[in-house]
Amino acid sequence: MSESNVLRLPKGFRFAAGYAGIRKFRAADLALMVSDTPASAGGVFTRNAVRAAPVEISAQCLRQSGGTARVVVANAGNANCATPNMAEVAAETARAAASLAEVSENQVLLASTGVIGEPIGADVIPQALPRLWETLDRSQFKDCAGAIMTTDTVPKVRFRELESAAGTVRLAGMAKGAGMIMPDMATMLSFLFTDARIGPKRVQACLKSSVDQSFNCITIDSDTSTNDTVFLLANGASGVDIDCLSETAFQEALNGLTRDLAKDIARDGEGASRLAEISVDGAQTDAEARALALAIANSPLVKTALAGADPNWGRILGAAGKVGIPFDPRQADVLISGVQVCSGGVRADFDEPSVQRTMEEREVSIGFRIGGGGKGRAVIWTCDLTEGYVRINAEYRT
Amino acid sequence: MSESNVLRLPKGFRFAAGYAGIRKFRAADLALMVSDTPASAGGVFTRNAVRAAPVEISAQCLRQSGGTARVVVANAGNANCATPNMAEVAAETARAAASLAEVSENQVLLASTGVIGEPIGADVIPQALPRLWETLDRSQFKDCAGAIMTTDTVPKVRFRELESAAGTVRLAGMAKGAGMIMPDMATMLSFLFTDARIGPKRVQACLKSSVDQSFNCITIDSDTSTNDTVFLLANGASGVDIDCLSETAFQEALNGLTRDLAKDIARDGEGASRLAEISVDGAQTDAEARALALAIANSPLVKTALAGADPNWGRILGAAGKVGIPFDPRQADVLISGVQVCSGGVRADFDEPSVQRTMEEREVSIGFRIGGGGKGRAVIWTCDLTEGYVRINAEYRT
Repeated sequence: MSESNVLRLPKGFRFAAGYAGIRKFRAADLALMVSDTPASAGGVFTRNAVRAAPVEISAQCLRQSGGTARVVVANAGNANCATPNMAEVAAETARAAASLAEVSENQVLLASTGVIGEPIGADVIPQALPRLWETLDRSQFKDCAGAIMTTDTVPKVRFRELESAAGTVRLAGMAKGAGMIMPDMATMLSFLFTDARIGPKRVQACLKSSVDQSFNCITIDSDTSTNDTVFLLANGASGVDIDCLSETAFQEALNGLTRDLAKDIARDGEGASRLAEISVDGAQTDAEARALALAIANSPLVKTALAGADPNWGRILGAAGKVGIPFDPRQADVLISGVQVCSGGVRADFDEPSVQRTMEEREVSIGFRIGGGGKGRAVIWTCDLTEGYVRINAEYRT
Repeated sequence: MSESNVLRLPKGFRFAAGYAGIRKFRAADLALMVSDTPASAGGVFTRNAVRAAPVEISAQCLRQSGGTARVVVANAGNANCATPNMAEVAAETARAAASLAEVSENQVLLASTGVIGEPIGADVIPQALPRLWETLDRSQFKDCAGAIMTTDTVPKVRFRELESAAGTVRLAGMAKGAGMIMPDMATMLSFLFTDARIGPKRVQACLKSSVDQSFNCITIDSDTSTNDTVFLLANGASGVDIDCLSETAFQEALNGLTRDLAKDIARDGEGASRLAEISVDGAQTDAEARALALAIANSPLVKTALAGADPNWGRILGAAGKVGIPFDPRQADVLISGVQVCSGGVRADFDEPSVQRTMEEREVSIGFRIGGGGKGRAVIWTCDLTEGYVRINAEYRT
């Protein structure tokens, strides 16, 4: 990692990435992330009824430890889910990491991503951990982001800095996504670190709040997974208490960090060629606006129109209409990258070639407005649906 | 149409298909279907909040006429939806057809499919109707099925015959589908004809019941449209009253007819290479089973695995898990074309190459069973998601 990014890392965390032999091809598949001192820790997990062992064990650890942790172990290449030995694999991994860090097992958080239902040996990760432990340093943060990638094309890391009279607070985060992304998260992992001093309850509340407006606002293919996990560790190494910052400064920085990472995930959706921001205004409630935005974002016909840079507002109108939320189509407007293409439910007067050109950009916005004076609004990020998505997912056993 | 199929048509209906200039390429785009005598008529329409003018006007006609009709006019190439003149186009079409048939306008039912939001002239269809009226006969039933095709690759027609002491009753149906198919129907049209003698209320009840177990059980891409319409006309020309048949014979024949057509639609989904039947057993209620089956059927990851003939049961388990319906994954089984691939939430002992081969067939079944003794069950038909689907829909303005 470049030296400048190392300087942007929060204090008191070290990182190591390596190849444990979980992936079939030789590329880092294991990430070890350690706080030098006990850290407040929060976690948000998938709501899928089928949950992987690392999700179960991490949720339990956070309960038992009262929201503290020292170590995060994450792997790609295998989800450690829906196998007879998944609990054993997770327990052995936690035990090995705890022993290296000389902490109790409930100080170890786990996350896995990869294929579901294929067992791995319970000794594979424990055998690789000592080697990683030896190399822990401040330079491998981005390598860890690489080690958790599956069909992602780029590692995703983001940084934030907060200045205050009491000193500087830093936040850093990594994420992986690509396929199976949808609110309530899906094969989506994100690990967030800060050297602010915050109590465990507040860490959990801040994390929950930021996840709701970031990772839970992206959708790639409406699928959610068994392994989605977001952790936030706050070790206080900056010496700056969150109460020394202005009231919402920390939350806003965390929101910015997670929103950037969430958009990075949507932008790098499997096969995606562009990011789309779907905003809905004028619904009766925010929840209804969200349902409409998700219907538009998840519509394969809208997503393929995005791939084809086709300002096909009829598909947007149709997708919104199918939700079961009543609205008057004669008062519905559609905007594409700021240009009104549908007004009162019929085609607006617009320059189609020019809108088509804006849709060929890497980022496109779709606005859907319902008349009637409702105050409900929502924003969802998604990507287009390309032949590449199908190619990636139709390959035998991705 | 082959002579044998003409003999399978219910009595007292005539058909004509032709090119009205609605499509950009020269292929039949207008279908005229007429009962020689007044017929009981039922209709089931899209539940999308955005409804095309032909849907609005047909629903109104059925109310005003007390469930009778003589004429069905259907076109492809333009949905007559979300345009300033859509009501005028529909009204002029109904007026022209009523004048030719010398009936009241409420005896004319309309349906349209094609692009949304592009106006057509109100005189385009009326000008073409007289020519079609001249050619009405018994040979053009399948031509009508062709005239309503959009991205369908084959016209879809099906027949049923019922023998009784009172004589023979015939049923015939056509359908078009391809994209945008989902329960509550989407750019899905189906027109059903029978020469049984049935009252209007019963026609509507029989139709509703059969649609619920056929067209509302298919999903191609989770999108539903503004124009979905199913009509059933019963003209009594066989002289056989429905009460002369055994109690459920007519309903069963109608169910068989509509189920065949629904499966034809799923099989011919845009870009589809195979039909998949998703059945769920053991849910608490049929509604829960249906929600689980739909989640599996609509999951892009399951659909791309179907395209790749990949027995990836983890994706099936994950798709079911995301619905929000609680179940114990340790009691969940998955079967692919009859072979158990997941038992109690983990991989079953099965011969993977052999299951992969069965998945390369044109028809694949996926069974999902939840333990716990629930009686809820549901069946949904869908197709795989291929690069062809994306290619078709990402083309500029399909």
